[in-house]
Amino acid sequence: MKTPVPDYLQHVLSACNNNQSGALANYIPELAQADPNKLALALSTIDGTIYSTGDDTLEFTIQSMSKPFAYALALKTLGLNAVLQKVGVEPSGEAFNQISLGQDQLPKNPMINSGAITTHALLPHKKTVSRAEHLRRFLSELAGRELQFDENVYASEVKTAFRNMSIGYMLRTVGVMDEDPEQIVNGYIQQCSIKVTVKDLAAMTSVLANGGIQPKTGKRLLDRAIVRQVLSVMMTCGMYDAAGDWLTTVGIPAKSGVAGGIMGVLPGQVGIAVFSPKLDSHGNSVRGVEIFERLSSDMGLHLMEGTPSAQTILQSRYSIGKKQNVIVYELRGVLQFTESEMLLRFLQDEPQAKNKIILDLTNLTLIHDVGARMLFEGVKRLKEDGHQVIVVDSEGVLSEEQVKGNKRLVVNDTLEHYLAQFEEKK
Amino acid sequence: MKTPVPDYLQHVLSACNNNQSGALANYIPELAQADPNKLALALSTIDGTIYSTGDDTLEFTIQSMSKPFAYALALKTLGLNAVLQKVGVEPSGEAFNQISLGQDQLPKNPMINSGAITTHALLPHKKTVSRAEHLRRFLSELAGRELQFDENVYASEVKTAFRNMSIGYMLRTVGVMDEDPEQIVNGYIQQCSIKVTVKDLAAMTSVLANGGIQPKTGKRLLDRAIVRQVLSVMMTCGMYDAAGDWLTTVGIPAKSGVAGGIMGVLPGQVGIAVFSPKLDSHGNSVRGVEIFERLSSDMGLHLMEGTPSAQTILQSRYSIGKKQNVIVYELRGVLQFTESEMLLRFLQDEPQAKNKIILDLTNLTLIHDVGARMLFEGVKRLKEDGHQVIVVDSEGVLSEEQVKGNKRLVVNDTLEHYLAQFEEKK
Amino acid sequence: MKTPVPDYLQHVLSACNNNQSGALANYIPELAQADPNKLALALSTIDGTIYSTGDDTLEFTIQSMSKPFAYALALKTLGLNAVLQKVGVEPSGEAFNQISLGQDQLPKNPMINSGAITTHALLPHKKTVSRAEHLRRFLSELAGRELQFDENVYASEVKTAFRNMSIGYMLRTVGVMDEDPEQIVNGYIQQCSIKVTVKDLAAMTSVLANGGIQPKTGKRLLDRAIVRQVLSVMMTCGMYDAAGDWLTTVGIPAKSGVAGGIMGVLPGQVGIAVFSPKLDSHGNSVRGVEIFERLSSDMGLHLMEGTPSAQTILQSRYSIGKKQNVIVYELRGVLQFTESEMLLRFLQDEPQAKNKIILDLTNLTLIHDVGARMLFEGVKRLKEDGHQVIVVDSEGVLSEEQVKGNKRLVVNDTLEHYLAQFEEKK
Amino acid sequence: MKTPVPDYLQHVLSACNNNQSGALANYIPELAQADPNKLALALSTIDGTIYSTGDDTLEFTIQSMSKPFAYALALKTLGLNAVLQKVGVEPSGEAFNQISLGQDQLPKNPMINSGAITTHALLPHKKTVSRAEHLRRFLSELAGRELQFDENVYASEVKTAFRNMSIGYMLRTVGVMDEDPEQIVNGYIQQCSIKVTVKDLAAMTSVLANGGIQPKTGKRLLDRAIVRQVLSVMMTCGMYDAAGDWLTTVGIPAKSGVAGGIMGVLPGQVGIAVFSPKLDSHGNSVRGVEIFERLSSDMGLHLMEGTPSAQTILQSRYSIGKKQNVIVYELRGVLQFTESEMLLRFLQDEPQAKNKIILDLTNLTLIHDVGARMLFEGVKRLKEDGHQVIVVDSEGVLSEEQVKGNKRLVVNDTLEHYLAQFEEKK
Repeated sequence: MKTPVPDYLQHVLSACNNNQSGALANYIPELAQADPNKLALALSTIDGTIYSTGDDTLEFTIQSMSKPFAYALALKTLGLNAVLQKVGVEPSGEAFNQISLGQDQLPKNPMINSGAITTHALLPHKKTVSRAEHLRRFLSELAGRELQFDENVYASEVKTAFRNMSIGYMLRTVGVMDEDPEQIVNGYIQQCSIKVTVKDLAAMTSVLANGGIQPKTGKRLLDRAIVRQVLSVMMTCGMYDAAGDWLTTVGIPAKSGVAGGIMGVLPGQVGIAVFSPKLDSHGNSVRGVEIFERLSSDMGLHLMEGTPSAQTILQSRYSIGKKQNVIVYELRGVLQFTESEMLLRFLQDEPQAKNKIILDLTNLTLIHDVGARMLFEGVKRLKEDGHQVIVVDSEGVLSEEQVKGNKRLVVNDTLEHYLAQFEEKK
Repeated sequence: MKTPVPDYLQHVLSACNNNQSGALANYIPELAQADPNKLALALSTIDGTIYSTGDDTLEFTIQSMSKPFAYALALKTLGLNAVLQKVGVEPSGEAFNQISLGQDQLPKNPMINSGAITTHALLPHKKTVSRAEHLRRFLSELAGRELQFDENVYASEVKTAFRNMSIGYMLRTVGVMDEDPEQIVNGYIQQCSIKVTVKDLAAMTSVLANGGIQPKTGKRLLDRAIVRQVLSVMMTCGMYDAAGDWLTTVGIPAKSGVAGGIMGVLPGQVGIAVFSPKLDSHGNSVRGVEIFERLSSDMGLHLMEGTPSAQTILQSRYSIGKKQNVIVYELRGVLQFTESEMLLRFLQDEPQAKNKIILDLTNLTLIHDVGARMLFEGVKRLKEDGHQVIVVDSEGVLSEEQVKGNKRLVVNDTLEHYLAQFEEKK
Repeated sequence: MKTPVPDYLQHVLSACNNNQSGALANYIPELAQADPNKLALALSTIDGTIYSTGDDTLEFTIQSMSKPFAYALALKTLGLNAVLQKVGVEPSGEAFNQISLGQDQLPKNPMINSGAITTHALLPHKKTVSRAEHLRRFLSELAGRELQFDENVYASEVKTAFRNMSIGYMLRTVGVMDEDPEQIVNGYIQQCSIKVTVKDLAAMTSVLANGGIQPKTGKRLLDRAIVRQVLSVMMTCGMYDAAGDWLTTVGIPAKSGVAGGIMGVLPGQVGIAVFSPKLDSHGNSVRGVEIFERLSSDMGLHLMEGTPSAQTILQSRYSIGKKQNVIVYELRGVLQFTESEMLLRFLQDEPQAKNKIILDLTNLTLIHDVGARMLFEGVKRLKEDGHQVIVVDSEGVLSEEQVKGNKRLVVNDTLEHYLAQFEEKK
Repeated sequence: MKTPVPDYLQHVLSACNNNQSGALANYIPELAQADPNKLALALSTIDGTIYSTGDDTLEFTIQSMSKPFAYALALKTLGLNAVLQKVGVEPSGEAFNQISLGQDQLPKNPMINSGAITTHALLPHKKTVSRAEHLRRFLSELAGRELQFDENVYASEVKTAFRNMSIGYMLRTVGVMDEDPEQIVNGYIQQCSIKVTVKDLAAMTSVLANGGIQPKTGKRLLDRAIVRQVLSVMMTCGMYDAAGDWLTTVGIPAKSGVAGGIMGVLPGQVGIAVFSPKLDSHGNSVRGVEIFERLSSDMGLHLMEGTPSAQTILQSRYSIGKKQNVIVYELRGVLQFTESEMLLRFLQDEPQAKNKIILDLTNLTLIHDVGARMLFEGVKRLKEDGHQVIVVDSEGVLSEEQVKGNKRLVVNDTLEHYLAQFEEKK
């Protein structure tokens, strides 16, 4: 069979196809030329699968959707505290193009233009490699292909960037930036002119959905803490002036761009990207918003829908050995607090006898630090009860840091090998 | 062994024990009498397990923590649209006791006092059963025990409720309420005087964490959509004037009360309740906030941490039968969009042969509508490929509504029985 | 002949008679009964002449026009500093019925309801004589006849005073007031229910125009400093939410009442009162505003029109005596800084000869302290030049305080008597 | 004798000499070099007399004190309506350097920088004569001497004008300005760099105090309506963020400049200018504010002090002729509404007999249109009563427009000549 997921996406797309309302961005001459009928949707899973439909190979400029990634790169470069000293994290309750300095004279968040321009100034740069070029390389890494600048859109925006120039000079005068405002604003406009397809965006958001790891390459591009920060800011500041409305009705951390793109991330689940050029009065793609609303309501994709995963942590428990006194726990999924709590409750029921207990981590995809701590604390207590305990980690899910102090308990062989050895030894 | 979870909670509690900053609520005489050293913490899982430590049997008044539940009861009584016509969902960016009417002259959200008083007026009531009494009964159902009003605190608050009276009259004058302001405000104060322990709160929040079902009784007390709405509003409006700060640093939808309680919910994972009477300048329990920060950072409890659950959907796949042409898929956990997508990808790999495919839902704890739709769409396609397909739902996870039109495909027997029958028939 | 001033007023009235726009105040049932066609205008000069036309004997409730007078009475009772600690003087930029507390938690000014309710609480009161009654007596003194409360309007307003009740409780909660909010709000509503005609208002405003002295009785009812304070506050806070608009287009410190009255004061010149019940969206009488605009533009009545009075200070200068060496300066009008400066310049030209100089103050209507100081300084210098100088003050324009230290220079006889004596002596 | 006015000013100056608080403007490098001890005060009367003391020949840059004059020149060039379509008249309640666009997206008033920059763009300009040069010429005419630009201050400010650049670009983006922001902002900075002394400012303000006529030359430089508009805006928007505070305590329409100057105007009375470089937190000269406060309280210079001038309108009334049936009214001062009303009351008492009445306008300094209208209406009514009436206007106080239709009644000879003729004829 063929999975119906593409058909679902196609169905959602078609349902929004008739919505002719909205208008092309008119303040940037080049964007006013866009074909208003274009429509595309892509969805990525956290293992890197990408579904897409519609005009999914059409390139458009990333515009404000570059903001969360620029914020991520700034955080990666300078650390959270340094960035927080320049840009806040509060919703501004104002339109995206307001200056919105808070009482501390800092831009309220990195999703409004003042915060995004400030964030651009925080990007790495060298004499020969500009801030925008650094970001382009980072986005290319996220997307898994080499992205390019759109020189026409850039040239078009630079000429009419009065508001951003105004914001740049304001940031300079209040001391948020020391750089030449004109240079930073132009760099920011270049950042916005990077060309992407919905597939690129889906790939990029899959990294955020996957906690910072590019699922195709397995390479960690961002720390979990940075991803958390970026998604949090997208949630409260990314869409609309009205954070509460978006959270209640859609519930997907998202960011839109004035060229017509919207991208969203449901952590641990999916990345989503849509494209349709006509905008509503907030500057968000009309059809894009509608698609997100449908995905949320039809597909149950909502941050507050939760995903109870505790009960699936135990793949199976069985006894082996002649006396059935070797107990094997095969674990599965991720080991965070809630799963660990459940595991420990299972272990709690283990009869107080001199059993040999094997905890097999082979099928875990991720162990958080708290999971590792709780796991080894459980092991310690089982041993105190008189059990013999072994942790099998053939895939190396545990990090060196997490194992520290418990090395002797961990076997890096597969369960089968280990059991075979064990049999032999016996 | 004994699970170390209580010890973890005790450890967190101790770490915050030395924090002597903050001050008792002084505007309510009765609260100013509280013992500032009291400290308690409780944590509930979505299956109803409750861990608690410290002064966990001490009763205190629920105060503003009643607001999310009153909102839930109003939503349950009148429906979302009727409630939205009276109270908004946007963060106010102002202190809890501001009047904060939006441009539409409606209270900005149900977590600030103007919204909470309006919400109180929306509660069900009869001549003989007041709004506050209706809420008390609802909270008792959530908590799993009969809660009581604190008459002393009520009497104390009524005398000094100048601000709430002011708000009540303002709501009357702008037409948000038609009722007598004095009566509604007094009822609201009574609502706030319901006595709870951290264990009660943990039980109550476990219902929210569990999507509206009381885990102990299995009774659905709230629709999923209402829970989503309540948690969304708690996230953006529940704590601090600064939603962005709380989301980035703690990331747990929460609500505090002026008596010193804070409760939080991580959907699909845990409910949390703390108590310590000394308050910071925002009116939140000082130690309570510290405990939440620690739980978030130490335990990785954060909304944006995601919980990848797709890959655990498939418990096992195996072939049986003489020709090994009966393929059994045992599923596990919940079937939402992401899990269904993963399942469909597994099914996609099923060789195009005339196999009999059995999908065993017995170990699923929940099937969302989207999951059911995707499941039956997969079944349909497998059949089109020439497979024979049977869905085994011995626990009745599928609702009648979800099965509709596919009744002939579903077997309500256990897998074993079914296979036995199957063998026999063969 | 008959002065055409009444005809001018009649003309202005007729010109506005056709304006049918606006609506009766609808939030106070009793006011909604008013006859919308009523129209009246009165104008008073600072010597107490009152012109009036239209329905000038019709009584209506004073409403918010009581605010400046209540402010004046509070200032008179407690002094400026005590009142400033309770109510500010800044325009609020908001509608009259907003709560508008400034950053210092005080009502922004005494013309908005929060400030007016606070001001009411500052009025004198005894067990047997309420605040409202004290104000009624004061207003009666200003109007020159015994005014009465309108019990029907009072009863009607008390029932629907939700907003004022809200404001009263808010003032209580922020600590601006310690009194029972309900009692103060009811007292304030009673204050607003005092009945006046446009003639009464014209008489009352003539006291303000005349620097605090009732022109008919010559009795000082308010200190000049209080009048200055009250008029300043009327100028920036009295009309519209838009002080700049009113100042540029009308330029007359004014206050309106919701029953349809508007009163204005041009200091040193005129008091004005109009009545017409239909209100615009700001709550100001539609025709009343139009009349004020016409009076300002047609009659040049505008605060910034200035009134050059320096050059009229010298009524005449002449020499008498055989050798023509007795020089008489007859002064006229008021002696403030600018007139004194001009007088001193005249005296400066006095040839340095042993003349006898007589300064006749008989026709001065007022000498400010600065005028007296400058006068005696001029006298001193003339004497240093060798002149003999006498000040004739037959009407006692100089106060005892102003004369202090210069008694020997001042003659309280009339110029004629003095000159006669002088002749005799010679 | 010598007039003591200079001594009074010197006295005020000395009293403020010890005030060492405040700080030099630090955001413009060149201004930070100023000598903080400099102190000067000048006062002008409406007939052009200028008193000055302290460092009264020291030149400093006019800075924001150029704003009211630029506003006046824009009004003169384009008319009130055209200017109101670009800049409002409301106090902003914000610091001078805020952007402060109102709901209509227009700068709130011409005294804040956004409004002043917009106003600069409205100044006349030609290819060869810039806006700043046009203003320099206008200011020179007001001051009565050729003023110059300070090239050093200009060069210094241009380099650091980040805030004004920000404002300029914002005005461009909202469409208030179509011009190149950089060019307009630079022109505005040049406007601010015009050098003046306190004597210059006193001369300039004497034109405003005198209703638009340069008292030395007698040339009308501004219409009365423009002067009224400019002074109104200075009153509500000129000083502090707090219009109410300045109006109640000082009561003089004023404007300050960041170089340390403050100028004020009391219409019909005086112009005032002070200079002292140290500024308070509002950007106003510390000693300058103190001097204004003293001038207001010590000298009674306050807009609300009014100046009753009605009663001085009649210089004298006497009968001549054999039968004493020729009645002469010698008038004096200005003839506005209040003076005309008084005159008409005098005429009202004229016995209904066939007298010849002569109204001598020779000593009037000004007749407003309303005064002329009321005068001729009085004449008409006297004639209807049977009187013979003649208006003597030897100085041509009446304008041609005002006389229109009444030419035959007006004699342009002096009273003496006329009476002589009259005698002869008789």
